[in-house]
Amino acid sequence: MMINAIGREIPEVVEGYGPVKSFAGAFATPPGMQRQAPAVKAARPGDSKLLDGLEEVFRRIPVRDGMTLSFHHHFRNGDGVVNQVLATAARLGIKNLKVALSSVFPVHAPLVEHFKTGVVTALDTNYMSGPVAEAVSRGVLAQPVVLRTHGGRARAIECGQLKIDVAFIAAPAADPCGNINGVTGPTACGSLGYAFPDAEYADHVVAVTDHLEAYPLSPVSIPQTRVDYVVKIERIGDPKGIVSGTTRITKDPVQLKIADTAAKVIEAAGLIRDGFSFQTGAGGASLAVAHFVRQMMKKARITGSFALGGITGHLVEMLEEGLFKKIIDVQGFDLEAVRSIASNPNHLEVSAGFYASPFNAGCAVNQLDCVILGATEIDTDFNVNVVTGSDGVIMGGSGGHSDAAAGAGLTIVVANLLRGRLPIIMDKVLTATTPGETIDVLVTEWGVAVNPRRAELREQLLAAGLPVKEIGELKAIAEKMAGKPKEVPLGSRIVAVVEYRDGTVLDVVRQAK
Amino acid sequence: MMINAIGREIPEVVEGYGPVKSFAGAFATPPGMQRQAPAVKAARPGDSKLLDGLEEVFRRIPVRDGMTLSFHHHFRNGDGVVNQVLATAARLGIKNLKVALSSVFPVHAPLVEHFKTGVVTALDTNYMSGPVAEAVSRGVLAQPVVLRTHGGRARAIECGQLKIDVAFIAAPAADPCGNINGVTGPTACGSLGYAFPDAEYADHVVAVTDHLEAYPLSPVSIPQTRVDYVVKIERIGDPKGIVSGTTRITKDPVQLKIADTAAKVIEAAGLIRDGFSFQTGAGGASLAVAHFVRQMMKKARITGSFALGGITGHLVEMLEEGLFKKIIDVQGFDLEAVRSIASNPNHLEVSAGFYASPFNAGCAVNQLDCVILGATEIDTDFNVNVVTGSDGVIMGGSGGHSDAAAGAGLTIVVANLLRGRLPIIMDKVLTATTPGETIDVLVTEWGVAVNPRRAELREQLLAAGLPVKEIGELKAIAEKMAGKPKEVPLGSRIVAVVEYRDGTVLDVVRQAK
Repeated sequence: MMINAIGREIPEVVEGYGPVKSFAGAFATPPGMQRQAPAVKAARPGDSKLLDGLEEVFRRIPVRDGMTLSFHHHFRNGDGVVNQVLATAARLGIKNLKVALSSVFPVHAPLVEHFKTGVVTALDTNYMSGPVAEAVSRGVLAQPVVLRTHGGRARAIECGQLKIDVAFIAAPAADPCGNINGVTGPTACGSLGYAFPDAEYADHVVAVTDHLEAYPLSPVSIPQTRVDYVVKIERIGDPKGIVSGTTRITKDPVQLKIADTAAKVIEAAGLIRDGFSFQTGAGGASLAVAHFVRQMMKKARITGSFALGGITGHLVEMLEEGLFKKIIDVQGFDLEAVRSIASNPNHLEVSAGFYASPFNAGCAVNQLDCVILGATEIDTDFNVNVVTGSDGVIMGGSGGHSDAAAGAGLTIVVANLLRGRLPIIMDKVLTATTPGETIDVLVTEWGVAVNPRRAELREQLLAAGLPVKEIGELKAIAEKMAGKPKEVPLGSRIVAVVEYRDGTVLDVVRQAK
Repeated sequence: MMINAIGREIPEVVEGYGPVKSFAGAFATPPGMQRQAPAVKAARPGDSKLLDGLEEVFRRIPVRDGMTLSFHHHFRNGDGVVNQVLATAARLGIKNLKVALSSVFPVHAPLVEHFKTGVVTALDTNYMSGPVAEAVSRGVLAQPVVLRTHGGRARAIECGQLKIDVAFIAAPAADPCGNINGVTGPTACGSLGYAFPDAEYADHVVAVTDHLEAYPLSPVSIPQTRVDYVVKIERIGDPKGIVSGTTRITKDPVQLKIADTAAKVIEAAGLIRDGFSFQTGAGGASLAVAHFVRQMMKKARITGSFALGGITGHLVEMLEEGLFKKIIDVQGFDLEAVRSIASNPNHLEVSAGFYASPFNAGCAVNQLDCVILGATEIDTDFNVNVVTGSDGVIMGGSGGHSDAAAGAGLTIVVANLLRGRLPIIMDKVLTATTPGETIDVLVTEWGVAVNPRRAELREQLLAAGLPVKEIGELKAIAEKMAGKPKEVPLGSRIVAVVEYRDGTVLDVVRQAK
């Protein structure tokens, strides 16, 4: 066993994962020297990439036992490609596949059956919820799932730790030569940013589309130069499923109070000024923060530089009102985001690496003034858990959580002090997803705790009259109301390895009972 | 000595170049297995890329003796970056640099002095004219220049045959994080396509700009993820210099006749139909072909799919008239092209690899119905020379010539039968630039010759009443008028190696006397 920089005990070798590189600090591990060398491809004039159905794709490549198939998650809970591709694999009797899917949603429930039959025996993802997460927690796979961050997945692909044999890219629009975008077809999903590294580095790249346009398609998000095959199917997904999670501002008075306080923290930190940049999620409380920030920006008559991240209609409205000059979009969270990226030249589509990879010449999160994040649990060292629930079952994942936390100048976690009936502040989070050194402020309905690393910020918040408390005080308040949370009984088997964005291991997840 | 597939005698090893891979046919040499693995980079929040002047760039990298510095040529004869960077190198006493500049123009004359003083001792380019070409021909460099094609340069960078230490990218607009475009600054040059591979693969990437915008710049042509430094200088170039070469339709009646015939060849081949795609150069005769094709397209009321290549105002007008749906642009040939790419979403910027590399999953030239090309000489096997003049001195280079010839369905060379007072048809061209197997038709004022490989095309042209002759007949006509051209006396030293787009050697250029 090793103890990493946030005090987690990690085996030196995890079976099915390999030797562990221990987390040493948010910016402590330097990259290796070279990227992965992707395959060279070649094509002659007259070659056709159009294939007749997924089975023909499987035969032409050919897809074999043990390969790694990758997918992006821009359709979120409306995705139709993963299930169709894996059903094809099952039909053809292929076994032992690794699925590298950037996020897993309830719609991907058929994966559980593929686990059981051995069609799929390994999973690599940045987030998972629903039946697949539940089954993984219960130990359905012999091999631990690798849980990455959005930036870490791009890094792993580019640097060769995640080698992809075949990337299947759900393409809302494609031309016969393999140019792809996410905006011009009837099932538009907006940005295709998470699929960019897959397209660039996979040995074989397949555009799976339900909308073929004449050559040359424009705009081009993923170019013909990396796409080997184009296959048209009936339907690649349901764009309505993109809108999973809340996209309306909360009406809950406690959450509104938290959001209002978070906005005041941003103001007290002096960030409501020209050039302000901002990221927030799609949860009700996060959106409420955006709502209050919007009012502050209007009142102060300032113009922000950019909004970043998964993009909602709320941020689109702020762009259209001139409150931000640009949106940098790696993923649309609703159909307003899709509409905007299709038509507004100030709404930019970027790759997962551009968004958040730690190992390139500079990613967008590094330019962020402020990010608003959630938490399932947070500990007195400010380490955050967004992977496991109070029962130890996986119900999420970092996604861009640790990326944005590491990059932003001010990282605020907003959370109710009690989640259900349990305190969210612990001595030690069950699963560490984001290291405490990258979290600056916790905002709850009972007060605001500032990371001791940010003494000057604490002074600013106090000067602004904000209810600053020690995180231990908040913990005590919660425990007074709800008691100390009981330890969660877990099995000893490791069902998931939580990789930090730089590829070191932050934590492991053990089997839920 | 070896004899390659087009019958040229090539040494097995060229001193200063290395072992020669012999040209085996336009699509005969398969690629190697892997691309080059580019350097991994990393950046922390708060890191700044802005440096104060070129000398600081040199010190920070640091630039050392023997390194390869790369540049793109979108400013053509108005480029200001190459000379400033190399003057900096000279001032700092750096020696033995290799300059990888996609094309060399008369404005780059100071390079000759850097050759003489040993600051620069190697050159890698796709085209050169003016004093540098003259000096190279006379033997100023001990090491032969590598002459590539535009697609071949992308391939060489991506596949690791051309390793770049530092790419200096003339950036008409940049932001402090290194996002670059060619369209929003006062010295806009349009597409930056030739710089894309350099940005992707160079160990160090420097954006040299005279126009800094606030983060995030948009549109983004080259992303911050690969750019290490940003330096602001007084002036990166003079966009007026982009318009080098003719950009007006010829008034010469002989050239107009040739152009009219070439257009009729396209029509006879059945290509004036919906979906027609077309590339032509910026020479007076090429533009005249475009002029006649435009009239035909209007008359036939057809809509072409795309125009490709170096883009002129003439093609922009055809896009704006609806004669083409899209323009695919790797380089602007005039300021109308710059204006269009900045404002028209159907005018697409693409990389050199997308345009023409043979070793990716498919380049744009492969989709071309027809390309119009020039020639200094053509031989009875249809091999074309666009590298050396009748005195054996280098005055050009392939650029996209052999790429488009290989990709297009119909490749037409237009040329006056006499150039100056010399026949352009020879038994054997002095320097082979483009293999005859990729040339379909030669159009002269005395008749049209069809490559024997295209018997069906010959029938089509005859049926259309076009003046089809054997290429030998045309050669005889020319020689009757002007006599047989004398052999050019050359030295034995090899001053340049002509690489085909796949990296094999088509020919060598020997020292001019």
